[in-house]
Amino acid sequence: MTVMMREIAEQPAAVDATWRSLRQQRGPLRGLLGGCRHVLFVARGSSDNAAIYGRYLLESLGLLQAALAAPSIATHYRNRIDLSDTCVVSVSQSGETEEIVRTQAWAAECGAATVAVTNDAGSALARSSDLALVTQAGAERAVPATKSYTTQLVAMIAVASAAAPDSAPLESAVERAPGQMQKLIDDRAGIDQAVEVLAGSEQTLVSGRGLALGTAMEIALKLEETCLRPVRGLSYADLRHGPIAVVDPGLAAIVVAARDGPMLTGMNDLAVDLRSRGAAVIAIGGSSRFGAGGVVVPGPDLPEPVAPLGLVLPGQLIVESLAGHLGLDPDAPRGLAKVTMTDPTTGGQE
Amino acid sequence: MTVMMREIAEQPAAVDATWRSLRQQRGPLRGLLGGCRHVLFVARGSSDNAAIYGRYLLESLGLLQAALAAPSIATHYRNRIDLSDTCVVSVSQSGETEEIVRTQAWAAECGAATVAVTNDAGSALARSSDLALVTQAGAERAVPATKSYTTQLVAMIAVASAAAPDSAPLESAVERAPGQMQKLIDDRAGIDQAVEVLAGSEQTLVSGRGLALGTAMEIALKLEETCLRPVRGLSYADLRHGPIAVVDPGLAAIVVAARDGPMLTGMNDLAVDLRSRGAAVIAIGGSSRFGAGGVVVPGPDLPEPVAPLGLVLPGQLIVESLAGHLGLDPDAPRGLAKVTMTDPTTGGQE
Repeated sequence: MTVMMREIAEQPAAVDATWRSLRQQRGPLRGLLGGCRHVLFVARGSSDNAAIYGRYLLESLGLLQAALAAPSIATHYRNRIDLSDTCVVSVSQSGETEEIVRTQAWAAECGAATVAVTNDAGSALARSSDLALVTQAGAERAVPATKSYTTQLVAMIAVASAAAPDSAPLESAVERAPGQMQKLIDDRAGIDQAVEVLAGSEQTLVSGRGLALGTAMEIALKLEETCLRPVRGLSYADLRHGPIAVVDPGLAAIVVAARDGPMLTGMNDLAVDLRSRGAAVIAIGGSSRFGAGGVVVPGPDLPEPVAPLGLVLPGQLIVESLAGHLGLDPDAPRGLAKVTMTDPTTGGQE
Repeated sequence: MTVMMREIAEQPAAVDATWRSLRQQRGPLRGLLGGCRHVLFVARGSSDNAAIYGRYLLESLGLLQAALAAPSIATHYRNRIDLSDTCVVSVSQSGETEEIVRTQAWAAECGAATVAVTNDAGSALARSSDLALVTQAGAERAVPATKSYTTQLVAMIAVASAAAPDSAPLESAVERAPGQMQKLIDDRAGIDQAVEVLAGSEQTLVSGRGLALGTAMEIALKLEETCLRPVRGLSYADLRHGPIAVVDPGLAAIVVAARDGPMLTGMNDLAVDLRSRGAAVIAIGGSSRFGAGGVVVPGPDLPEPVAPLGLVLPGQLIVESLAGHLGLDPDAPRGLAKVTMTDPTTGGQE
């Protein structure tokens, strides 16, 4: 068994442990958020995909305006902006990615309250934040992030839960997630068929929308970095807005949707449209008719706001299996290190 | 001569006319922005790339926190968010893109001040805004946006100029832009060599960073929709953070940078790195050593904050010429209409 597979299988327990720990921090979180009208996420890579989810979660539930920061404003342009009404949530598994640590420090100088989401309580990011939300993923040894990513999603739910006037629906839903994740790991439904289609395709794209957009981007990133082939992650809207014109036979399209919510109809139509253009469609999640005629990969039985906790799992299983199929080692892909540096030699100090 | 080429050539005059018109509106703009601490851009497609520039312009100069809205929050999730301290800037050439019009209406209900950037003073977007910044591009007939895009960039500069305590440096720089744009159109330096490299490459990516990121994304979008081949637009950071591992010979990489500013060193290093991995590098802009060993395409002699007005021009010239080279009609690419609809049948009302 690969290390990546073992870590995929550890996720139900890691998510459960993280939620039990972070729900204790709703009080202090509520205190910090009470003084803020905006949330700004700071992240890169897989953590960025967790932040995309966090942004949609806060905004779709009508809790707070949220956006993703451009770290180069802090690391390269260095002018201050008034952030005194803003809570900056920095997300980094290691808590040591220099660009993220420096951007959090800049945000604090700009007057922001700072929340660090990290897997290491002793990291620079955690120590220099107003409040650290420490994920309980344990040590992650495979280079592709799996359990560190899903536990970051739990931290996003903790932030939303602290901001929500009535957090009960969110909380009861997240408590059902570990069981649903376990079921997806045990069943592996549709995984082998999806791997076969991807192995035989020339090009791959992954698309999702709204709350599931971050999941689509994360599956695209994992596929690319682990299976060493170019993969495009595109929002439903950006795909519809131009690139769909270049969809041809030979393309494998992975579409991702929750079982319910306002995105499902459009994602169903997109899957039909992609198929009519000759693409091989792999549909993760959705409801019964999602992906009809293509490869159907069931998702979790969870409501849209927390569905991303489970929706990414089939993607991880596909990536792990496809890497083996292609003769690659999913645990240590070429050219990637665990602590990421955006600017390789200078830490962005040019 | 193609319609696209004629419209490319009209840009110096269109940019000049737009600046002369919009600088008259700095007073009312200043009034609107005075009550705001944040700016939220609403856009899709080429207009989205103009908004990316607007966001970096406002933040890099330390003027206002800025971000791009997720329109589906307005059109699909429909919960309200407190935007009473926010100025929403909606960008749409036609001013009739339903998703953008609806998102602006939602923002107003959320308490935002609204500024519409559009090429049609009588459009729904202009009529329903607090303040309309009408670009002077004239009718644009080719499907690929050129002069409507660069005049939108002028509107972004007008917003930054109204927010700046000292707008004189920005204003004197923008007044030099039309002359620089004309020079790039007249010289066409490096264009034929770039087209030759792109015609012979299997894959294309375009990268830029900070103030030039929107330019890179716009060149990628134009290449893809006009030349009907998949093209990836990636920020420097996102490229460094994973996808660079899959750069192989056969890839043509277009890198874009201003002649100065804090991004130039990193972009120089990226160009060298891409070449060492076997990619054919086409370098647009930068300073003397940018793109050494590859195809060098000079950019405008303009400071980084306004350089995007000229940096996109070589990209447009490359796209127009490559389309002809590939036997395609740049004026009417397959599958695209001038007024864009994200949700084809329902206007997003599913």
